[in-house]
Amino acid sequence: MNHLCPSDFARLDMSRRERTGFGETVFCPGKTLPQLLAIMQRFQAADEAVLGTRCTPEQAAFLQAQNLPVDYDPTSRILTSQWGTIAPLKGRIAVCTGGTADLPTAEEAARTAEFSGATVDRFYDVGVAGIHRLFSQLESIRRADVVIAVAGMEGALGSVLSGLVAAPVIAVPTSVGYGAGFQGLAPLLAMLNSCAEGMTVVNIDNGFGAGAAACRMLRMKENRSDEQ
Amino acid sequence: MNHLCPSDFARLDMSRRERTGFGETVFCPGKTLPQLLAIMQRFQAADEAVLGTRCTPEQAAFLQAQNLPVDYDPTSRILTSQWGTIAPLKGRIAVCTGGTADLPTAEEAARTAEFSGATVDRFYDVGVAGIHRLFSQLESIRRADVVIAVAGMEGALGSVLSGLVAAPVIAVPTSVGYGAGFQGLAPLLAMLNSCAEGMTVVNIDNGFGAGAAACRMLRMKENRSDEQ
Amino acid sequence: MNHLCPSDFARLDMSRRERTGFGETVFCPGKTLPQLLAIMQRFQAADEAVLGTRCTPEQAAFLQAQNLPVDYDPTSRILTSQWGTIAPLKGRIAVCTGGTADLPTAEEAARTAEFSGATVDRFYDVGVAGIHRLFSQLESIRRADVVIAVAGMEGALGSVLSGLVAAPVIAVPTSVGYGAGFQGLAPLLAMLNSCAEGMTVVNIDNGFGAGAAACRMLRMKENRSDEQ
Amino acid sequence: MNHLCPSDFARLDMSRRERTGFGETVFCPGKTLPQLLAIMQRFQAADEAVLGTRCTPEQAAFLQAQNLPVDYDPTSRILTSQWGTIAPLKGRIAVCTGGTADLPTAEEAARTAEFSGATVDRFYDVGVAGIHRLFSQLESIRRADVVIAVAGMEGALGSVLSGLVAAPVIAVPTSVGYGAGFQGLAPLLAMLNSCAEGMTVVNIDNGFGAGAAACRMLRMKENRSDEQ
Amino acid sequence: MNHLCPSDFARLDMSRRERTGFGETVFCPGKTLPQLLAIMQRFQAADEAVLGTRCTPEQAAFLQAQNLPVDYDPTSRILTSQWGTIAPLKGRIAVCTGGTADLPTAEEAARTAEFSGATVDRFYDVGVAGIHRLFSQLESIRRADVVIAVAGMEGALGSVLSGLVAAPVIAVPTSVGYGAGFQGLAPLLAMLNSCAEGMTVVNIDNGFGAGAAACRMLRMKENRSDEQ
Amino acid sequence: MNHLCPSDFARLDMSRRERTGFGETVFCPGKTLPQLLAIMQRFQAADEAVLGTRCTPEQAAFLQAQNLPVDYDPTSRILTSQWGTIAPLKGRIAVCTGGTADLPTAEEAARTAEFSGATVDRFYDVGVAGIHRLFSQLESIRRADVVIAVAGMEGALGSVLSGLVAAPVIAVPTSVGYGAGFQGLAPLLAMLNSCAEGMTVVNIDNGFGAGAAACRMLRMKENRSDEQ
Amino acid sequence: MNHLCPSDFARLDMSRRERTGFGETVFCPGKTLPQLLAIMQRFQAADEAVLGTRCTPEQAAFLQAQNLPVDYDPTSRILTSQWGTIAPLKGRIAVCTGGTADLPTAEEAARTAEFSGATVDRFYDVGVAGIHRLFSQLESIRRADVVIAVAGMEGALGSVLSGLVAAPVIAVPTSVGYGAGFQGLAPLLAMLNSCAEGMTVVNIDNGFGAGAAACRMLRMKENRSDEQ
Amino acid sequence: MNHLCPSDFARLDMSRRERTGFGETVFCPGKTLPQLLAIMQRFQAADEAVLGTRCTPEQAAFLQAQNLPVDYDPTSRILTSQWGTIAPLKGRIAVCTGGTADLPTAEEAARTAEFSGATVDRFYDVGVAGIHRLFSQLESIRRADVVIAVAGMEGALGSVLSGLVAAPVIAVPTSVGYGAGFQGLAPLLAMLNSCAEGMTVVNIDNGFGAGAAACRMLRMKENRSDEQ
Repeated sequence: MNHLCPSDFARLDMSRRERTGFGETVFCPGKTLPQLLAIMQRFQAADEAVLGTRCTPEQAAFLQAQNLPVDYDPTSRILTSQWGTIAPLKGRIAVCTGGTADLPTAEEAARTAEFSGATVDRFYDVGVAGIHRLFSQLESIRRADVVIAVAGMEGALGSVLSGLVAAPVIAVPTSVGYGAGFQGLAPLLAMLNSCAEGMTVVNIDNGFGAGAAACRMLRMKENRSDEQ
Repeated sequence: MNHLCPSDFARLDMSRRERTGFGETVFCPGKTLPQLLAIMQRFQAADEAVLGTRCTPEQAAFLQAQNLPVDYDPTSRILTSQWGTIAPLKGRIAVCTGGTADLPTAEEAARTAEFSGATVDRFYDVGVAGIHRLFSQLESIRRADVVIAVAGMEGALGSVLSGLVAAPVIAVPTSVGYGAGFQGLAPLLAMLNSCAEGMTVVNIDNGFGAGAAACRMLRMKENRSDEQ
Repeated sequence: MNHLCPSDFARLDMSRRERTGFGETVFCPGKTLPQLLAIMQRFQAADEAVLGTRCTPEQAAFLQAQNLPVDYDPTSRILTSQWGTIAPLKGRIAVCTGGTADLPTAEEAARTAEFSGATVDRFYDVGVAGIHRLFSQLESIRRADVVIAVAGMEGALGSVLSGLVAAPVIAVPTSVGYGAGFQGLAPLLAMLNSCAEGMTVVNIDNGFGAGAAACRMLRMKENRSDEQ
Repeated sequence: MNHLCPSDFARLDMSRRERTGFGETVFCPGKTLPQLLAIMQRFQAADEAVLGTRCTPEQAAFLQAQNLPVDYDPTSRILTSQWGTIAPLKGRIAVCTGGTADLPTAEEAARTAEFSGATVDRFYDVGVAGIHRLFSQLESIRRADVVIAVAGMEGALGSVLSGLVAAPVIAVPTSVGYGAGFQGLAPLLAMLNSCAEGMTVVNIDNGFGAGAAACRMLRMKENRSDEQ
Repeated sequence: MNHLCPSDFARLDMSRRERTGFGETVFCPGKTLPQLLAIMQRFQAADEAVLGTRCTPEQAAFLQAQNLPVDYDPTSRILTSQWGTIAPLKGRIAVCTGGTADLPTAEEAARTAEFSGATVDRFYDVGVAGIHRLFSQLESIRRADVVIAVAGMEGALGSVLSGLVAAPVIAVPTSVGYGAGFQGLAPLLAMLNSCAEGMTVVNIDNGFGAGAAACRMLRMKENRSDEQ
Repeated sequence: MNHLCPSDFARLDMSRRERTGFGETVFCPGKTLPQLLAIMQRFQAADEAVLGTRCTPEQAAFLQAQNLPVDYDPTSRILTSQWGTIAPLKGRIAVCTGGTADLPTAEEAARTAEFSGATVDRFYDVGVAGIHRLFSQLESIRRADVVIAVAGMEGALGSVLSGLVAAPVIAVPTSVGYGAGFQGLAPLLAMLNSCAEGMTVVNIDNGFGAGAAACRMLRMKENRSDEQ
Repeated sequence: MNHLCPSDFARLDMSRRERTGFGETVFCPGKTLPQLLAIMQRFQAADEAVLGTRCTPEQAAFLQAQNLPVDYDPTSRILTSQWGTIAPLKGRIAVCTGGTADLPTAEEAARTAEFSGATVDRFYDVGVAGIHRLFSQLESIRRADVVIAVAGMEGALGSVLSGLVAAPVIAVPTSVGYGAGFQGLAPLLAMLNSCAEGMTVVNIDNGFGAGAAACRMLRMKENRSDEQ
Repeated sequence: MNHLCPSDFARLDMSRRERTGFGETVFCPGKTLPQLLAIMQRFQAADEAVLGTRCTPEQAAFLQAQNLPVDYDPTSRILTSQWGTIAPLKGRIAVCTGGTADLPTAEEAARTAEFSGATVDRFYDVGVAGIHRLFSQLESIRRADVVIAVAGMEGALGSVLSGLVAAPVIAVPTSVGYGAGFQGLAPLLAMLNSCAEGMTVVNIDNGFGAGAAACRMLRMKENRSDEQ
């Protein structure tokens, strides 16, 4: 099984970090255990740091049982390699959630960003049903360079935040809710239709995408050689 | 034309006010001018106050040209009879809007309630993109017995208000917006999925329904004979 | 586990009852057992009565096994604290259902209202397929100050009731049905498009929301000091 | 123009009446004036009675200006040939509507059936918002062999009727309504999810289909030779 | 458990057969075992024949274990009482399916009709992909007074049949398919938009509704006393 | 105006024919008259044959008034250059329609293919409501190398054809219909869910796409040099 | 069980291969084990090669345990008979995927085509996120006569490929993705709206349909007797 | 008319620029001419620069006829005040489009950003159907700090760009397309489901939102005083 050749089913994008600033990520669903192992070993051989998303506990346990040096966080379902080095990023990211049930997605965003070198502050359960909870944290949130707003149900957190801070806001709708929430469609539409400018949106439950986009934004704080 | 008999195409519900506390309403779209005139004359003959909704300027002008004693408000498209008497209601209704473009629906709600005897306070353009605008009016809004929250785009106004006042909140999504607003679907879903309890919702752009429901609620302030 | 600090993942809204008349509610889905326990203990410490919704039997059993004084109703999936005191409300709420399968949602509405101090009368299985069943109960239903109409499938119960009673009607669509019911979309749309005025709507299967809104309405029967 | 050959763009189904009991129908939208004329003339030449649906006033006026012996009803947009003979059908069809705005669709159903030889009784504006209006007509409606229930908005009329009569009920949703009515989707879904058995449904605003299906049912009242 | 009183959760419609010609039906999903037993026993006590739909094997086994004299067909999930008498109906119903996977729905239609006294002929797997299979059965299908067309995927069977027979066609879309079939939405829409007149439609997978409607149609073959 | 430089708003793909066998096409909607003229002149200068789709009569008239040598067909809204040369293709394409109203889309397919060098046979109005019309043409249709099936409403034509011919079938749903046809969604879903294998689908009303794809397929009849 | 007669539930289309060039296929879902066995045995008796799609491991194991000579591939869920003979096809098909998770659908396409006599080249994991991976394979892909592009998520692979090759492209959306991917709706819509001409689309996850359509296209490479 | 008081219908957010870095914007649709004039005059009196979006030519002409010093661009429908001063921003924004028809939305993005002080480079008509057009511009696009990708139809441009550049990519779906494009739904879903990380999305046709968000990102290039 260890001799499975990834080139039969996967073409690893080894130049991705150089090209886009973010190494290739492994989307774990739908991959068999041998496929996943072969892919990870290939990255390990190249000493290329790698992140896996939506990794099941079974997939993680299998990889660890094969002595692959990876860490796994069951809340965010994020798998991270212990190998490879990633340079730290300047600036701070604030990850805010509307409620406690948004935690898995928020942690996916936070851990993705942290793995990529960012500093992350967490502000959880500051949703609009009790808006004083948000106001009590506002000073701290305003210190962030990028704000990630994670919310399900009616998804109003992003709009409210965008009207209160000057940083770019990335809104992440979650599938938290029921009935006419339609598995996250309600907050997705709400976030796309925000009356507050300066907010952009990612897919439902896509904490990873929000974290990765936030890191691209933080890189703007570097002094680039070609800039004059 | 004046001899058109409404019983051919319409069965007027003359006992409605007695049964439900709210007289029958004429939904104007799809009715021909002669049909509309015959219906209104029937109410006039019975001296039964009547309200018309979504009345076009052409329909209103035709009725007035026939010397029918009706008033017409082009913003709300509400048509009201000058005949009939309606007893005043106790208590106050606050009608709030997210933005200026929500005015037609808000006025439909306000004028429906006023025609039914209610006292209405208007708080327009207090949407969440600049939430301090809402907070500056909050003391006044809290004086209301029923709050109507009219908003398009992401429709967050209802959720925020429900978390701040103790009165029942009736949320009215509007078709204000574009793209993934899908003609009001976005705020409708957002309002149905509110994380704040105590809010109920009516159809998109249904100011009339919100005003009528608010009046039913105000009637709870009367001392009813059967209550002991 | 008992030492888990809720402030890491939850900001409890202890002033909610004072602000909105309704204490904070715990939405149980997606919360881990330790999170749920820590949250409930925090309310217990403050002697603040608390309601949990959509609580699984496993969650309830865990809390009771930890000697937390809570009651659990498996039909409505409502969890209620034995601590805290709630003042009774004047007036009566009628909870009606279209069919037997709507019971869980109806009971969620009824128990939410009862926990908040309301008196509730139940009228179950009075749907429109055999409308004489509804008429035989109409006198009793008309005694209510607020009517909650719970129905799946075509959701016609709300419209029919709104045309027959003078009280405000809160319609609750349920996911009962199949095929083109689309998990409650059919009755939701039907209720939003009611031809009878005076009805407002909550999310699919949201008995809790209906019960809470009904209580806000009942509070209108109190003599408020600021009313003159 | 009169020399246009229909076989270039249309293959008329001259054996349809024999095969299905119902002659071919011309769906007028999207047909040019010359195409429409050529098609109708072909039927005229065969002395085959023909019905046109959704015919615009312009199309009808053009055909009549060409001296084609056809009748046109602007409410239902039905065009009928004066040529051809159709045998009368036994039994009666009741066409009921929820409101006055459903008239065009109801008339399309009624006139389709009448053109096919059926006897039709009309019961308009008997919707569920004032259900006593329906009950006052119930004895008459029960005399029908087939009931057609035409309704927009929440479309509850069909369910209520199906629970009250023994005849088959054909429900026709209409696009009357606005907002979350989604051009007739709301009553369509409601009718498909009826809790009352014995009802079948046709497309939104498809009065023609309902009238034609009702005639197929009435033909069951004939004594068929092959039946033993 | 046997002492559970159905009036707490169910109001049985004992006059239904007299009113609509079809006895009340028990929709089994969402009913607890004790509720189901209590309901059935009530019908048994009245010697009123009763049909249960979508009954799980577990529900059926429980009832039989309680010595309730009922029959159960696992394919159609139909439960039928051994008590009560139902008069036979004149005429024949043809039940056709597009494919083998449509069998459960087709059998639900067939057994519903048979329980109500109808004679049913089955024509299974005559879908349009190999249309000669349909043509080889056409003579037999044409002998039916009502045709039920059960099909999933693109649902073309109903349209093709409606163009070939003179009997009313009831189309039943099924959830057979995958992907953009959207659990039966594709055949449902196809059937509603049939270019062949004379067809009506029921809910997705609603074999019961088709069978019941077909029986209402067959009753037109009786000589009714009020017909003159 | 004639001096407008296309490189400001359009990058013409002059190597497209060489790369894909099909020259670039101009999608006319949303282009201003000067933009359209500048683009066409650029192609004219290169003597590169070019096709415009969904061209309005106003756009065509403007170009012709500027003496641009182009032809315009108002039925298909196809604009074609008189310049440039295109080699003829081997084989035949059959374009079939369900009804007369599908003609514009069918002609778009046919003229696209003809402009690209293909031979096209037209079989119009052979829909499934009168399936004998299709059978009478079947021998001729079977002579085609590629069959294009254009149909609105329930879109069954493609499935029926795919089960009867051996050639690849390209299905084109059209927006012909109303109500639950949802502007072509119904036939689109039906065609995607065909139970007959060998059919592929293009966008609603996309006759152009069908014609272009058919030409790619016909090219398979050439002897290619790299084939061994 | 072995004596079950398929004619009770299935009418096998034994002339299908002759008529359409592709033998009948068994859609395995929803078929009971005895039904499946009886159907396969019927094909075996006729020595007619047969393909089963979406076959579960349980179904395959059962058939093999009954000594039916069939092969099963768990990745594609394709079942193939060892009996029957199929003539090889000229030309080559390229099957490309966007990612590793699209493999099951891609293999369904590839194995369907191979079973039908085609030569297939696989190009997996060449999605647009790292477009150099696609370019490195382009020379080889261009050698194909038909290209099948299998992709989930945003489904851009088909558009990009259609602009780069001259062969017809069959796009297969997959349900790979989450959230607003809506089980494959996102790539389906993207593929239908491709700005690159020459591409046609099949149902979500319908590898079988793509493989079968590709084979129909390859048959164009034969010299047909009726062609002159 | 000039005396209309904006406080009746609009509460201008004069502290918005200070709070969020972006002054208040006027959403012009649904505002009457007097309302629009009164709002603009209020900003003029405060010498606060202001931007209007989706302004019709009629609205712009009216304001200019009242001697209000504003500029209007009919392509983007952007209205800008000549008064007020805005500080320039560091860095560059690249605005790319898939086709010429995306120009209005692209210009809305570009002009919003330019009005806010940003430097914008335009790369129009670089869509994926002819991907060499994009590659020829790639070096220049990579110089941008933020990339805005504007595309309709299948919306693949954003995904392809995100895999090729290191800057954050803001994707703007447009309503360009037809049929199953569903007014921009297809590219919206495609962009939300991008397999390339680092991209965020705004509403359909929301060029303004993309431009405003890009400016928030550019501000990260400033040295902020609170950063240590």
